[in-house]
Amino acid sequence: MMQRIDFQTDPSGYRHWRVEVDGDVASLVLDVAEDGGLFPGYELKLNSYDLGVDIELADAVQRLRFEHPEVRCVVMRSGKENVFCAGANIRMLAGASHGLKVNFCKFTNETRCAIEDAEENSGQRYLAAVSGACAGGGYEIAVTAGHVMLVDDRRSAVSLPEVPLLAVLPGTGGLTRLTDKRKVRRDRADVFCTLEEGVRGKRAVEWRLVDEVVPPSRWDEAVAARAAELAALSDRPAGARGVALTPLRRVFRDDGVDYGHLRVDLDRAGRKAVLTLRGPDDVPADIHAAGADFWALALARELDDAILHLRLNEPELGLLVFRSEGDPAKVLAADALLAADDWLAREIRLLWKRVLKRVDMTSRSLVTLVEPGSCFAGTLAELVCAADRAVMFAGTRAGDNRAAPVLTLGALNFGAYTMANGLTRLATRFLGEPESVDAARAAQDQALEADEADALGLVTVAFDEVDWDDEVRMLLEERASFSADALTALEANLRFAGPETMETRIFGRLTAWQNWVFQRPSAVGADGALTRYGSGVKPNYDPQRV
Amino acid sequence: MMQRIDFQTDPSGYRHWRVEVDGDVASLVLDVAEDGGLFPGYELKLNSYDLGVDIELADAVQRLRFEHPEVRCVVMRSGKENVFCAGANIRMLAGASHGLKVNFCKFTNETRCAIEDAEENSGQRYLAAVSGACAGGGYEIAVTAGHVMLVDDRRSAVSLPEVPLLAVLPGTGGLTRLTDKRKVRRDRADVFCTLEEGVRGKRAVEWRLVDEVVPPSRWDEAVAARAAELAALSDRPAGARGVALTPLRRVFRDDGVDYGHLRVDLDRAGRKAVLTLRGPDDVPADIHAAGADFWALALARELDDAILHLRLNEPELGLLVFRSEGDPAKVLAADALLAADDWLAREIRLLWKRVLKRVDMTSRSLVTLVEPGSCFAGTLAELVCAADRAVMFAGTRAGDNRAAPVLTLGALNFGAYTMANGLTRLATRFLGEPESVDAARAAQDQALEADEADALGLVTVAFDEVDWDDEVRMLLEERASFSADALTALEANLRFAGPETMETRIFGRLTAWQNWVFQRPSAVGADGALTRYGSGVKPNYDPQRV
Repeated sequence: MMQRIDFQTDPSGYRHWRVEVDGDVASLVLDVAEDGGLFPGYELKLNSYDLGVDIELADAVQRLRFEHPEVRCVVMRSGKENVFCAGANIRMLAGASHGLKVNFCKFTNETRCAIEDAEENSGQRYLAAVSGACAGGGYEIAVTAGHVMLVDDRRSAVSLPEVPLLAVLPGTGGLTRLTDKRKVRRDRADVFCTLEEGVRGKRAVEWRLVDEVVPPSRWDEAVAARAAELAALSDRPAGARGVALTPLRRVFRDDGVDYGHLRVDLDRAGRKAVLTLRGPDDVPADIHAAGADFWALALARELDDAILHLRLNEPELGLLVFRSEGDPAKVLAADALLAADDWLAREIRLLWKRVLKRVDMTSRSLVTLVEPGSCFAGTLAELVCAADRAVMFAGTRAGDNRAAPVLTLGALNFGAYTMANGLTRLATRFLGEPESVDAARAAQDQALEADEADALGLVTVAFDEVDWDDEVRMLLEERASFSADALTALEANLRFAGPETMETRIFGRLTAWQNWVFQRPSAVGADGALTRYGSGVKPNYDPQRV
Repeated sequence: MMQRIDFQTDPSGYRHWRVEVDGDVASLVLDVAEDGGLFPGYELKLNSYDLGVDIELADAVQRLRFEHPEVRCVVMRSGKENVFCAGANIRMLAGASHGLKVNFCKFTNETRCAIEDAEENSGQRYLAAVSGACAGGGYEIAVTAGHVMLVDDRRSAVSLPEVPLLAVLPGTGGLTRLTDKRKVRRDRADVFCTLEEGVRGKRAVEWRLVDEVVPPSRWDEAVAARAAELAALSDRPAGARGVALTPLRRVFRDDGVDYGHLRVDLDRAGRKAVLTLRGPDDVPADIHAAGADFWALALARELDDAILHLRLNEPELGLLVFRSEGDPAKVLAADALLAADDWLAREIRLLWKRVLKRVDMTSRSLVTLVEPGSCFAGTLAELVCAADRAVMFAGTRAGDNRAAPVLTLGALNFGAYTMANGLTRLATRFLGEPESVDAARAAQDQALEADEADALGLVTVAFDEVDWDDEVRMLLEERASFSADALTALEANLRFAGPETMETRIFGRLTAWQNWVFQRPSAVGADGALTRYGSGVKPNYDPQRV
């Protein structure tokens, strides 16, 4: 059996990153353990990274937000001499399956976007202090920071050498951040992306590749000064105490995973995973005192972990079915705490926003079943709109004394959880009929039974007891019978209507092209560049342009 | 040797379309000749199409604009009973190479966008009158029209059955037009795209898939009335005489093509094609009298044909090098005629806009060389900005009595030729420094030598006589040494910065995913759906989601 990839870690287990907090500035120091690769067969030389390195980075970025309200600026730097980061490890990539390549890139892209989210929405400014070679994925990490400094020592340079060296793209957002974030002139971007040795010194500033260059003599002082300056711009709270992200309660079964508030049941024959989210038993008086045990925070972390587990460890389960159990009123009571003007409430909302985006970006068909006993209200109602199909049970079942299921929209459905396109799921759903968003808003806080939810356009279809079992079974069976790849591509196009952002372009255009390249002989064939990298034998390229 | 695909045709040679003009309404009737396939091995049953059918459509759409200023509404309909169009021919697709699939889709997408351009900018409204089955690519043709009518006869339906039947995407813009143009609710779009039998009647209207349904008894009358209504909205000129698009002057050589104003030289060893555009010898007193012989119109058609020829017939030439010869002042004089408030001038400008977009969309590296004797001014200066790299010769060559080359921007560079992203090439180039657009505008009509053009950011680099030959040779050789696929993907990401439009999403996101699917075993493998289509044997899908 395949090794299970685990996304849970904490600083005591880090092998590749160090977090050093000094007042309101933290340093995130990349110092990769060469022998610490997640898989056998490669060494992580020159601060190159694999998925394991990125799992630690994602964890560190998350903990800085929750555990360190005092940190207002994060400086990313290298713990090694002469190299900032050499990017993704090539031998790891060369040995990875197509699915692992794609999911590795997706997760690293999500982590890069999480850094930008912390900067934009959590008041934690990021500063990349680049000293030494900063190549490929290394530069892609650097440009997630709002401010990039490069030491002007005649050796340190930034580069994106993927095309000339490896016949693949700088696919962890590099190209999109060149065009959209840093707005590099297109012909200069073209030169930059074909220049193995990269660009350094004043030209790197002139070409908008970095924000400033500093002579070595003034380097430490300049980085510290700039970090202090960025920290001063932050709206992080004064005198707040962080919330420790304690280990998740989690038990793996042969056919599923049990979390504190989430049960995952695997149906390998039916190629699906059923995720049952449980609503809160009660609502704390103080979310700060409850900390990581607060239902909304705990469930968000559990759902995030479950999605990542399914993506990487259960690739053949093409369907995710979302169910819920609990009291909708208690979900809305928890939402009321989340809506508060408080740094921790904000962090939890932002975490849900990211977890829901992780759901959107997951290349599995998503079906939400709104059944008797369910609690799709407020935050959880997002999973109704996030689904490719939402099916609602109309009325009650004979012999079941539970009330007819309801769907309840709350305040958080109208702004807190924007998708990658910058719009709420409701606004995206109703792009063609914006008046339907107003109608949904008018129904806020109302417990909507199936006919009402259907009339408001909030669910795809409603079935009563007579039809439910057969219709749901047929829907899930039919979906499982389609080509997995065709569904992946279909969903990638249908899920993100409306405006484009850097994020949609990274996950839409850039990723799709990279995935295409990851299939092409010139990159991954026996004579391809990834396969032959480091062998001393030149790759053999198919000269045909398609 | 491969059969040469020819994009030139005219109505006397059409086998699949009929154009019937009746006053201000034209009918574009699809009546495909089953035995008229462009390649052997398939029959074009049920009004299905291949590249040859689409070449005729592109030609018909273009001629309606130039040759029929009186036509204000174009009705697309079928010449066959019971079927509007069954979409792209599957056996043709199954037998096509990856490169042919990709280029077939690209051209059909360009033709669909040209229909929308005619509707938006030329005042020719399109009406799709759908009677009979309208499946896949057939529906994708229908939704290019601004208004889609469906007969409500209990048989006629619209559908996008690609995912369930073929394991590929509706890739000729279908998905993007569902989300962006017609703004269909995402879960309904999902249902629609998995429903082999499609949607008909009132539900098709309710789901925004068509604009109206009409009972058979009122069909002809309702279509005619709607066409008249749309025609009345047009700004097409009254009493104008069309301009016949006479056959291109064109001679194929073993190592190139000679057109009237364009020479294409093929360098197969160097994997490049050099396109030398010649400026006008003189400028006509009246562009209407000059007609298709007017330099600007003739050259646009020639360049369009040359690009398409190179795309389809010379796939191993990964580099297009643009050169020019002539008098910049005469190019600007022609531009002055093009800038007139006149329907024909508008059509020629719009044609240049489309041809330049065709250049942008061509998956070849584009290098423009601004040399002594060149005439990159006004419209032709677009090729400097369209290039991935523009290299300018600084000063004069010893023994060459020609003046130093100049680059001259004209009025048309500041609005007439928007890219797919809706911005001019200059605005796209200077997204990060909009003040540079102002500086360029201030230099309008000035003959800029290399140092000035370089200082304004209009060229990538300038070399004088000492370095020119070696630097240009190295640039072209280096480019030819890279992976063709990596360059295709790189250029697809770098060329379209800035805003996204339906067009950029079709050619960016949708196309990239379709190209990926076109590489996957579930679609194109020995057991894949395309391969097994019609064999009676079910395809075998890889269940892994990536």
